[in-house]
Amino acid sequence: MQLFFRNDYGEGAHPIVMERLVKTNMEHTCGYGLDEYSLCAQKLIREKCGQMQAAVHLMIGGTSANVIALSAFMRPYEAVVCAPTGHINTHETGALEGMGHKILTCASVEGKVTVEGVREVCKNHQDEHVVKPRVVYISQPTEIGTVYSLTELRALREVCDACGLLLYVDGARLGSALTCRECDMTLKEMAALVDAFTIGGTKNGLLFGEALVLVNQTLHEDFRWMIKHGGGMLAKGRLCGLMFLAAFENDDYFSWARHANQMADIIRAGMERGGVAYFQKTTTNQIFPIVTEEQERALAERFAFERWEILPDGRRAIRFVTSWATAKEDAQQLSDAMEALC
Amino acid sequence: MQLFFRNDYGEGAHPIVMERLVKTNMEHTCGYGLDEYSLCAQKLIREKCGQMQAAVHLMIGGTSANVIALSAFMRPYEAVVCAPTGHINTHETGALEGMGHKILTCASVEGKVTVEGVREVCKNHQDEHVVKPRVVYISQPTEIGTVYSLTELRALREVCDACGLLLYVDGARLGSALTCRECDMTLKEMAALVDAFTIGGTKNGLLFGEALVLVNQTLHEDFRWMIKHGGGMLAKGRLCGLMFLAAFENDDYFSWARHANQMADIIRAGMERGGVAYFQKTTTNQIFPIVTEEQERALAERFAFERWEILPDGRRAIRFVTSWATAKEDAQQLSDAMEALC
Amino acid sequence: MQLFFRNDYGEGAHPIVMERLVKTNMEHTCGYGLDEYSLCAQKLIREKCGQMQAAVHLMIGGTSANVIALSAFMRPYEAVVCAPTGHINTHETGALEGMGHKILTCASVEGKVTVEGVREVCKNHQDEHVVKPRVVYISQPTEIGTVYSLTELRALREVCDACGLLLYVDGARLGSALTCRECDMTLKEMAALVDAFTIGGTKNGLLFGEALVLVNQTLHEDFRWMIKHGGGMLAKGRLCGLMFLAAFENDDYFSWARHANQMADIIRAGMERGGVAYFQKTTTNQIFPIVTEEQERALAERFAFERWEILPDGRRAIRFVTSWATAKEDAQQLSDAMEALC
Amino acid sequence: MQLFFRNDYGEGAHPIVMERLVKTNMEHTCGYGLDEYSLCAQKLIREKCGQMQAAVHLMIGGTSANVIALSAFMRPYEAVVCAPTGHINTHETGALEGMGHKILTCASVEGKVTVEGVREVCKNHQDEHVVKPRVVYISQPTEIGTVYSLTELRALREVCDACGLLLYVDGARLGSALTCRECDMTLKEMAALVDAFTIGGTKNGLLFGEALVLVNQTLHEDFRWMIKHGGGMLAKGRLCGLMFLAAFENDDYFSWARHANQMADIIRAGMERGGVAYFQKTTTNQIFPIVTEEQERALAERFAFERWEILPDGRRAIRFVTSWATAKEDAQQLSDAMEALC
Repeated sequence: MQLFFRNDYGEGAHPIVMERLVKTNMEHTCGYGLDEYSLCAQKLIREKCGQMQAAVHLMIGGTSANVIALSAFMRPYEAVVCAPTGHINTHETGALEGMGHKILTCASVEGKVTVEGVREVCKNHQDEHVVKPRVVYISQPTEIGTVYSLTELRALREVCDACGLLLYVDGARLGSALTCRECDMTLKEMAALVDAFTIGGTKNGLLFGEALVLVNQTLHEDFRWMIKHGGGMLAKGRLCGLMFLAAFENDDYFSWARHANQMADIIRAGMERGGVAYFQKTTTNQIFPIVTEEQERALAERFAFERWEILPDGRRAIRFVTSWATAKEDAQQLSDAMEALC
Repeated sequence: MQLFFRNDYGEGAHPIVMERLVKTNMEHTCGYGLDEYSLCAQKLIREKCGQMQAAVHLMIGGTSANVIALSAFMRPYEAVVCAPTGHINTHETGALEGMGHKILTCASVEGKVTVEGVREVCKNHQDEHVVKPRVVYISQPTEIGTVYSLTELRALREVCDACGLLLYVDGARLGSALTCRECDMTLKEMAALVDAFTIGGTKNGLLFGEALVLVNQTLHEDFRWMIKHGGGMLAKGRLCGLMFLAAFENDDYFSWARHANQMADIIRAGMERGGVAYFQKTTTNQIFPIVTEEQERALAERFAFERWEILPDGRRAIRFVTSWATAKEDAQQLSDAMEALC
Repeated sequence: MQLFFRNDYGEGAHPIVMERLVKTNMEHTCGYGLDEYSLCAQKLIREKCGQMQAAVHLMIGGTSANVIALSAFMRPYEAVVCAPTGHINTHETGALEGMGHKILTCASVEGKVTVEGVREVCKNHQDEHVVKPRVVYISQPTEIGTVYSLTELRALREVCDACGLLLYVDGARLGSALTCRECDMTLKEMAALVDAFTIGGTKNGLLFGEALVLVNQTLHEDFRWMIKHGGGMLAKGRLCGLMFLAAFENDDYFSWARHANQMADIIRAGMERGGVAYFQKTTTNQIFPIVTEEQERALAERFAFERWEILPDGRRAIRFVTSWATAKEDAQQLSDAMEALC
Repeated sequence: MQLFFRNDYGEGAHPIVMERLVKTNMEHTCGYGLDEYSLCAQKLIREKCGQMQAAVHLMIGGTSANVIALSAFMRPYEAVVCAPTGHINTHETGALEGMGHKILTCASVEGKVTVEGVREVCKNHQDEHVVKPRVVYISQPTEIGTVYSLTELRALREVCDACGLLLYVDGARLGSALTCRECDMTLKEMAALVDAFTIGGTKNGLLFGEALVLVNQTLHEDFRWMIKHGGGMLAKGRLCGLMFLAAFENDDYFSWARHANQMADIIRAGMERGGVAYFQKTTTNQIFPIVTEEQERALAERFAFERWEILPDGRRAIRFVTSWATAKEDAQQLSDAMEALC
């Protein structure tokens, strides 16, 4: 059987999370996320973010959270600005457009929105014949595993302020970003710079669930109406509460993410020893090597992974993903295989 | 502490379901509902429905399933016909309108859409200045616990055929309908008469999840695009697969629902002995007694339930709900209390 | 040939309007309603309304104006409250739902929304499981030709204030309402009581066009974006400017409407002499007699009109409509025919 | 006063059109485009297109026509492919996204969609995690005045057939394209190659109005419902009928467009004599010279035109537009001024 490096959502939940669900399973609580567990989780997340005035909503999934949040922030003619690789732009099957909003792509470097990119879009969208930019959407880490530095985030905050834009962070893999060796910001520092962001649970040990943190209080109004209207309100909302409690009570959320990054580092070490080229250099839990067609085939016999892209020269960019569930031995085996590749 | 009769989604999952999730927790599978468990569950449901050509999609929640399915069935100017009490009309915060579609209410009796009601709506919607009816939406059981008979369902099928309408059944509590003593249809009989329907998991022992059965093959095309576009595709889709497998493998889905109905029968027996009036007579797992303000207050000290409505004369219609998780002793206590009420 | 009483949009424009268009035809102006004629017309309308701070937008048509305005006023989960007969509810093919918003119907008397109706809807829409009422939509005159009194309008303003609702008036036939003998309010009095309203041009002498008056300044922001986004911005916007100038410069708008009402009064006089029953009594330019099948047939030989409804007893409610273009002789002929009917 | 070269919608209608409207002004007809004039115009257009089975709808404006047509052709998750400069992508304020659909931009040359561009987009949109391309949208002429050749159009037809895509042509300035000296296709040839297209009236002599030709019969169903739902149905629909009759009865539509092109040729002749550079070479009624800041200022004293873009080197791309209403003397004056520029 192949060792699993296909993605970070291939298992159930971290045992700590499962245990919590099992232990509370027969308790009776009220529904729709108004139970004590959900309230506790929301409070805990506010504390961890250092934003006690924030509103925290526990959402079912990433696309659902992005669409509900972003459409709540905009009037019908307003648009989101993001990198061409932005998840909402490429991999959500037009869900945001489905709520009526255009996505404007802007200049980016290594998957990261640039200040100049935002400024250029704003310059070109000034009158009523074009949409009005309203939100800058970034992902931390990006869809290709790169990480915004604190300096970069501050610069985006400034250009957003200058242009009257909101700044939203899709944190589907936020744990991995905040715990990678390259990252120079804390959760609190990030939270203080943005208007809203998600803390992804699905890809870091939960069965499902994303915590949406609305830092900016002008965005709070009637948000539960938006969730229900958007089909995103879970009857047994406590499940999210319990799982986020389990993840944040002892900061396990970060430990699990750190583990994933360390497993990735083991693999990267092998790649570097073997001199394997990167399609995109990263320090988070996604690794993008370039291999030949034969190497891809050989690797696929022992390891499960995704092909990312066929390069113009016929070589393959492939993707390995590690997670809280990746065993050190497995990472080492892949590392060795990469070292021996050439 | 109060005994819990507030709703049928106040606990986690049935232990059989939880066990299944725990046992498979560390297995690696592919995502988005394309894993073996999901495929097996879909096949099993097709078999149980006697509709091997049907498409089965495992959806996250009820509102999400209704909105995605119904909007997939319609062109922009088309509308759904339902009872004024229809869940999509009253308790989904305009989610279907959010996808652009009008809901037309029609005449109903005890929460059930009537053939005449459908016919009247069609008669009044003939030209391009009004929306075009396309789907009849019914709930089995209805939002107030009543059940369509096989004769009634056949009559609706006929009027739908005559008027060129699809027939859709919201089965959020389908188990309770199909296993109540009043019900004269099997799952297979129902499936054979409708174009699409849901089998609710949330309210019958699953953590969450509704199986959407697209009986009519003209509705199958690109449905996974609709799910993703509608924000309803779970990364760890196997969770639904595992839970529906657990529920249907040994027909436990029906046993759990039957248990809920039996617990309700115990309560109804007490009510009848005590001569308590019904706001709405039912044989399913929702019971709607009429009590005075004082009786309501007294009951609330020992039992958790919802107030449904204040009647013009000041009395209260209240609602008790039983479930797979209701203990017989608890039901008996409520039954005794109702008997002793007057 | 039949004399024309089918509707009030069966001709082109009033000759005064056409003349204005012809005279200015070869002038060059800038587009999209930013020309001098449009600006003048907007200013003139503000003056006539006694609302110099209002924003006036010259819209193409009624459905377009209603949908763009109402969707600009609401967040996605918010809803409009109107009478069951409200034009947006019955005769706009779900255009407002197409922009994502639910319409809630409320109790009404003779086509007019009642204060109790509004209050009841608000009482039943309090939490996030249901839509949130945001705007009360009324038509002056109503779709069945009745007219709100100043007292009734003030009462609606009060209930809207009490419930946090906006009050919007569809004035597709506003001229007819304001100049009918029953009406006890002026344009200024009406404008002072509402948040926004339209002044219909199509049905009172213009080729097309509705002036949308946004009295409430909180509704002004970015409205031209909404118009363009909604497909309602005319390249040759000056056409609306010129036509509304022609209509309002010498208050001809009201003269034309008064003429229509007077022609209707002539017909009503004949009906009363003849003892013809009303389906709905009115004082505006729509008349709704009840006739037998044979009478309907006989009338149809000489007059063009619409059948409104077949009554349960087989008789017909029919509709005559007069306009600025109705000749006195024609009205007299219909009057005589109605008098001689029985 | 400046001579007017700002756009092709700065006047009213061609005198022939106005005359027709005046002459028929007091006739009574039925509404909503079901009158004899509209029916005749539709028939005439079908004949001119050589597509007697086509459905022709007379729409109010360009954005409205594009949005209603394209959203009628697609299911919710389907997308339109167009050039980055496509009007629907850049200058309709997100109107198409407002109806729920994503726009995918593809590779283009001189504003024209390329076959490779379409193929690449299709290759990248294969599964349910991304939108599904459904329509290729092109403009003839393009937004920057270039023209597809018959060979290019045939190639697009082929790639659309191969990929299961519809081909839609925005003909806001179709007259100018079909009558320019570069064009090698007739209206009939174009109509035979596409699924649907518009024939723009606003920019070629009508007060407003675009004829939408649905060549492909599978697109006909219920289209009048789409128009009304989209707020695009004019009560006095005959206006469009009369205007299109006036324009096509004697093929004046083409004469007016040819005149506009000839006026542009006069200006181009001066530019070429003067050696003025083009931002974009064209043979239609839009001309895009590159001038210095001072030249722009000097020209602006005598001529009204639009600035298109500031180039990186500080020079300006400006735009002159000619129309049916451009006088030969005025064109000559601008031509002379351009010749004398350097």
